[in-house]
Amino acid sequence: MKQFVEFELTTEFRDRFQEALDQRDSQFIRESLEDVNPADISALLYEFNPEESKYTLDILSLEIRAKIISDLDSETRTNFLKSYEPTEITEIINLLDSDDAADILNELPIKKSEEVIAGLDPTLRSQVIDLLRYDENVAGGLMAKELIKARSNWSVVQCVEEIRKQAENVTKFYTVFVVDEDDKLLGKVALQDIVISDANKLVADIYEQDIVSVETYLTDTEVAGIMKKYDLESVPVVNVQGQLVGRITIDDIVDVITEQADEDRQLMSGITEDVEEDDTVWKNTRARLPWLLIGIFGGMLSARFMGLFEAELARVTAIAFFVPLIQATGGNVGIQSSSLVVQSLASTGFVDEGLLQRLTKVLFVALLNGFFLSVLVFGANWLLFGNQQLSIVVSIALFSVVVFASLVGTITPLILDRFGFNPAVASGPFITTINDLLGLTVYFITIQVML
Amino acid sequence: MKQFVEFELTTEFRDRFQEALDQRDSQFIRESLEDVNPADISALLYEFNPEESKYTLDILSLEIRAKIISDLDSETRTNFLKSYEPTEITEIINLLDSDDAADILNELPIKKSEEVIAGLDPTLRSQVIDLLRYDENVAGGLMAKELIKARSNWSVVQCVEEIRKQAENVTKFYTVFVVDEDDKLLGKVALQDIVISDANKLVADIYEQDIVSVETYLTDTEVAGIMKKYDLESVPVVNVQGQLVGRITIDDIVDVITEQADEDRQLMSGITEDVEEDDTVWKNTRARLPWLLIGIFGGMLSARFMGLFEAELARVTAIAFFVPLIQATGGNVGIQSSSLVVQSLASTGFVDEGLLQRLTKVLFVALLNGFFLSVLVFGANWLLFGNQQLSIVVSIALFSVVVFASLVGTITPLILDRFGFNPAVASGPFITTINDLLGLTVYFITIQVML
Repeated sequence: MKQFVEFELTTEFRDRFQEALDQRDSQFIRESLEDVNPADISALLYEFNPEESKYTLDILSLEIRAKIISDLDSETRTNFLKSYEPTEITEIINLLDSDDAADILNELPIKKSEEVIAGLDPTLRSQVIDLLRYDENVAGGLMAKELIKARSNWSVVQCVEEIRKQAENVTKFYTVFVVDEDDKLLGKVALQDIVISDANKLVADIYEQDIVSVETYLTDTEVAGIMKKYDLESVPVVNVQGQLVGRITIDDIVDVITEQADEDRQLMSGITEDVEEDDTVWKNTRARLPWLLIGIFGGMLSARFMGLFEAELARVTAIAFFVPLIQATGGNVGIQSSSLVVQSLASTGFVDEGLLQRLTKVLFVALLNGFFLSVLVFGANWLLFGNQQLSIVVSIALFSVVVFASLVGTITPLILDRFGFNPAVASGPFITTINDLLGLTVYFITIQVML
Repeated sequence: MKQFVEFELTTEFRDRFQEALDQRDSQFIRESLEDVNPADISALLYEFNPEESKYTLDILSLEIRAKIISDLDSETRTNFLKSYEPTEITEIINLLDSDDAADILNELPIKKSEEVIAGLDPTLRSQVIDLLRYDENVAGGLMAKELIKARSNWSVVQCVEEIRKQAENVTKFYTVFVVDEDDKLLGKVALQDIVISDANKLVADIYEQDIVSVETYLTDTEVAGIMKKYDLESVPVVNVQGQLVGRITIDDIVDVITEQADEDRQLMSGITEDVEEDDTVWKNTRARLPWLLIGIFGGMLSARFMGLFEAELARVTAIAFFVPLIQATGGNVGIQSSSLVVQSLASTGFVDEGLLQRLTKVLFVALLNGFFLSVLVFGANWLLFGNQQLSIVVSIALFSVVVFASLVGTITPLILDRFGFNPAVASGPFITTINDLLGLTVYFITIQVML
């Protein structure tokens, strides 16, 4: 084996490469990238501007160029392909699988996309036109048209012959799908079973009938759930008539899972756009502002609200001391609760507990936590501040905040989910802001009543 | 195709099933589960207690039983297998692949595990003993020993013969690995290339030499990164001598990716144990308490700290009104910053920006956001409260808090990462608590200086 060494992108190499780009030193570029995996070259290109990237790619072979371009993330690629002529894009796309081709065409301006489609090889063209009908986040938009089909009345030998013919257009496959004369999906044969079978057997004797397929309209999340649950490396896609129209492979699903985790994390941390640390200062600022504004709005409301209790605050200044404690606890409890709900919404297969049952349980957890915390805080306050009456008020308020924040944190994501929003929104600054206000209200009502 | 219908676990079915369990109605159980995929039966079992689950499983065939048990999550299984005799476990494990077998053995008490190992089929026994040497979260602990090997001087026909022999022990494979006489990995052949090749060709003519492999000691995160980057459905594992010792398939990596996303989400939301909404009240309470205590500790510190400024608070009560605003903004900015750092730490392949460059950029974003927010708040305060001097103080404090919280939010996860902790910890209550205190300090120092 030519020892495979994972390519490590060092600052030195990047600087040397930049130098080569500045000097248009095509020899250095060609030689230094010769043994590098296209996936690593993609990562390298993120370091340079589109014009420099194009110069680099034009030095490489068309196959490698196509692989790299299909590897880039959607935003970088959109930007990058602006400097490409339609004919250049056609050349590249002709080398790709139909699903990757459709992804790229989806990103092009409509006029350019039409020009590219017109130039594609006829088979790929009709495949791509079929795929472009689907939204990107449903099974139809994820699937590739390239697959290997067999008929159940073929012998294994015949099947191998047909695989040889069909395999020209399919880069990677592990499974042969069995269909009837109307292209209706009947089952599948693993490639390994074809290899180890007696050549005279019929496909009918060796194929699996009990298989999992997905309909074109299932969402990417649903497809991911199904493939994960049943440990599938590829899944056939059927239309409403049950005809086989494509297949989805696990590598596309791995991307779906990763993107969703990233999106959830961003929502939880109050970042609105898909932004990365090395995007521009302006983009980073813009991605953060909306949630900060919501926080500011909540803060201003808090200020107005506390203004109503100016007399009490003037009388007992120490009331103010415990505002941070009450608020922080409300925020923490709210996020914990909503996060657990989001997690349970994401896991499939469980019987959904009824809302009442769920809330009852949340209530018990809250009562327990609230009890521990308020006893603790009461003790600490008594020792530290000595004001017994205020200590009682703070502990009662704290207890109530834990209970209310738990319930709000549980209900909010359920409501969001019911109305089709991503419930992870509820684990971010949104729920914190609501719980801040809630905590303050509970605290001052307790003060009003008891102090 | 026998139409595959995704099994939907309804409350009605669960209740009916519970009834059948209570009445020991084995006929209903057998019939109702007959066409159900083992993965769905696993999900169903989460609804019942270990004793009921065992009763259900004992009705099913040994093959299905084995599949279901290897599907269960580690915690449920540990609990569940307590009621099994070593001989029963041996029977089940004898039907599993070596990686799944090792996972289960790792969960058993040492004495029981030894008894089970002693009863295993000799091949599986030696494979499992080899796997048990590795930590669960490194490549050696993830890999399975079952794989198909070929020698480069074999012809394709010979290779197919050998595959037939070796395939008995390997449930699923898409790739044949090529090794030399010392078992050193030379490359691989995709199964599809074997099927479509001329039978008289040599393996040497068709195998790929330039392949990606991983060493036994790479962490699961590293393996996941490599498989994602290079779009691999399986990767060979080699020891330090370069000998082929196992393979890791993508379905195990999908689990690793999902678990890591869940873990990050839990850390970000301040939940310490791996807990689910439908775990017991007590477990849920315990998982939440530690972070709540940190929040409470921070809140008590805040109270003590504000106590130092009792005179100022008594003089200008309105100072207290803006405590929530300052704290919430500090918290939000801190989480946004740390979350972006965590994300960039997770993405591989980029040249690491220097710390100074990173902080400079964060600083600019903070200056911009801080400027917008403080101008806005100044305007609002002036209109709402009319106290110009306090408005200026609040805006200056807000601006400083945005800047400081950004820097702390950026540096904390970098430090955690450097010392080998999961940097996602820094996006949760930890950073919020620190930023709460920071915000308060900045605010009161500004007051001290200016008011």
